[in-house]
Amino acid sequence: RCGEECQADRLMNLCPACEKPLLARYDLTEAARTLTRDSLAKRESSLWRYEEVLPIQTRAAQIRLGEGWTPLLHAQALGEEIGCPKTLIKDESLNPTGSFKARGLSAAVSRAVEIGVRRFAMPSAGNAGGALAAYVARAGAEAYITVPRETPQANVTEVQFYNARWELVAGHIGDAGRVARERAAEEGLFDLSTMKEPYRVEGKKTMGYELAQDLGWKAPDVVMYPTGGGTGLLGIWKAFEEMAAMGWLTDDRRPRMVCVQSEGCAPLVKAYDEGKDRIEPWPDPQTIAAGLRVPGPYADDLILQVVRQSGGTALTVSDDEIRAGVREMAELEGVFACPEGAGTLAALRTLLAQGAVDPEGTIVLLNTGNGLKYLDLLGEP
Amino acid sequence: RCGEECQADRLMNLCPACEKPLLARYDLTEAARTLTRDSLAKRESSLWRYEEVLPIQTRAAQIRLGEGWTPLLHAQALGEEIGCPKTLIKDESLNPTGSFKARGLSAAVSRAVEIGVRRFAMPSAGNAGGALAAYVARAGAEAYITVPRETPQANVTEVQFYNARWELVAGHIGDAGRVARERAAEEGLFDLSTMKEPYRVEGKKTMGYELAQDLGWKAPDVVMYPTGGGTGLLGIWKAFEEMAAMGWLTDDRRPRMVCVQSEGCAPLVKAYDEGKDRIEPWPDPQTIAAGLRVPGPYADDLILQVVRQSGGTALTVSDDEIRAGVREMAELEGVFACPEGAGTLAALRTLLAQGAVDPEGTIVLLNTGNGLKYLDLLGEP
Repeated sequence: RCGEECQADRLMNLCPACEKPLLARYDLTEAARTLTRDSLAKRESSLWRYEEVLPIQTRAAQIRLGEGWTPLLHAQALGEEIGCPKTLIKDESLNPTGSFKARGLSAAVSRAVEIGVRRFAMPSAGNAGGALAAYVARAGAEAYITVPRETPQANVTEVQFYNARWELVAGHIGDAGRVARERAAEEGLFDLSTMKEPYRVEGKKTMGYELAQDLGWKAPDVVMYPTGGGTGLLGIWKAFEEMAAMGWLTDDRRPRMVCVQSEGCAPLVKAYDEGKDRIEPWPDPQTIAAGLRVPGPYADDLILQVVRQSGGTALTVSDDEIRAGVREMAELEGVFACPEGAGTLAALRTLLAQGAVDPEGTIVLLNTGNGLKYLDLLGEP
Repeated sequence: RCGEECQADRLMNLCPACEKPLLARYDLTEAARTLTRDSLAKRESSLWRYEEVLPIQTRAAQIRLGEGWTPLLHAQALGEEIGCPKTLIKDESLNPTGSFKARGLSAAVSRAVEIGVRRFAMPSAGNAGGALAAYVARAGAEAYITVPRETPQANVTEVQFYNARWELVAGHIGDAGRVARERAAEEGLFDLSTMKEPYRVEGKKTMGYELAQDLGWKAPDVVMYPTGGGTGLLGIWKAFEEMAAMGWLTDDRRPRMVCVQSEGCAPLVKAYDEGKDRIEPWPDPQTIAAGLRVPGPYADDLILQVVRQSGGTALTVSDDEIRAGVREMAELEGVFACPEGAGTLAALRTLLAQGAVDPEGTIVLLNTGNGLKYLDLLGEP
């Protein structure tokens, strides 16, 4: 944001000059020498296919569990039901640990371990904790994960099985983040909090690369993105910028990025509606979509900027709509979506009813994870 | 088994002549014209990359959720721990619905729907029910699933979310199978019970094709296979036969197929140990590995034949060993295995201690599904 440049060979959290998020920049001319659209046809089926535009320097440092390259499913029955025949579901539940968090944490842990970090701290109200714990286990490193009290049981259990240290914290992800920072300071752990280091967004951006390839090197018209910390929203946008710079896209269109939040925690939607550039922290975040219980997303200004610049919008869904969405995506498409992902369906219905999106457009519902990890919250259908 | 030939354009369950399982045969010379090892480098990342050797006739009939092409992970830390450095984990938890059952049911449902079936019946003590329900939902068809009372809660819940009809049955999978057959007869449903139709094994065999490609067109030395109904064990063996016929393999080696069962339900191990060709039904199947609670696998003679012919073996693991295996695979490799998959680790330890496998060999632990679906059985680590 301030224009400061930092060297990529050093371990970094926020910008030392302005304390805002750092974003990775690549020599894309150099990258594009080997990373070509044609080359991708023969590359491996994981996010490491994009290694020239990922921060890890050597292949041996890539910590892998099979992350990325998830299916983009045509939701024909669902699309007919809602009057939007080109509705697609990007199904991130097929990632290791059952969510898109695997992408960001694979990239960030790999790079940090490559630089020499062996001990990590992070707060998590949902799937990020399990993903961190899994990659840290695979790396033979250590993690300390702080977990708000209302986190779904499966997320706590997986952290326990991966044998990470963990601590239950009263309050929300912001409170857990404070405790994680304290532990990090006390014990010299590297803080992997959302948008407080530069590389989780690099892992997440690979969703954008995959969407473009699956759509014949065109952007979808709309990406419906369930937004907690917003790393993936920023990442997808960054991917389209990078692909444009490498000359990969067949036209100048970019996806309209739609920020979907829950009625019970909607700081970005509120700021968007009020025309503001920054959020005010949401006082009492409450929603079944655990990953959306983020009252103060750290990259708020960046997210709002992308949403506006892309011609997108921001809107809320209710927990009842979310529950109905989980059922409908399962019944009509065989996709047992997480509540966060299912919320995008109700949001799309709202936008269609408002005439805010073209019903003939190509619209991606981003299902960020597996509904199986929310059984204690979802109950029976 | 009896040599009878049936036409592939008709809907088939068992052989009309001998009432044993039917196996699909292809014109492999014809298949090998287009399906070459080189062609695979550019094909899609799902089991449909092998479409020439799958029973579905048209691409439009392929019911897809992103099944297959799962990662083969080098388990370095685990391998060092057990003194078997080339231990690999084939991680089937990255399939749709979180288990390898997606492969078989994707293939079988696709082909049956292609022939005109719209209504299915099947028993399931574990992950098969969710997979059937998901593919049937995706196809806009109907399923009736009978579920033994002790099935893990997640398996029942997913069936409910996919909106399949289902019925809880007292007893084990055999009892549920009887009820499924009754419902099938009453309502004219197509019975998809394990090995009672020819195409679930076709979907499962793609695991064998993937293993060979990942290992440079060589067989692994040993496949440790958690065996309930044994479809995948038969499928992997069949894949190596087909690849050999197409001239794809660099040598004549085949994998030694090791049948791993639980102490609480081990009809195949008992028959193997007693030198018999058929099993006796296990009286009271009890194990945390729900998918191994199969007291009378229908393809028992075929399974025993493959295990012996391959130079493999059959052995049991205890539930305590299974629980320890789940923890160890999670802690050391970041893989939260299902109990069935985790049992292969204890079994490998036993074989290493017996000197029954070469510790320098390439040994595949087949993790058939996601541990997250067994939280009610696993409890806390």
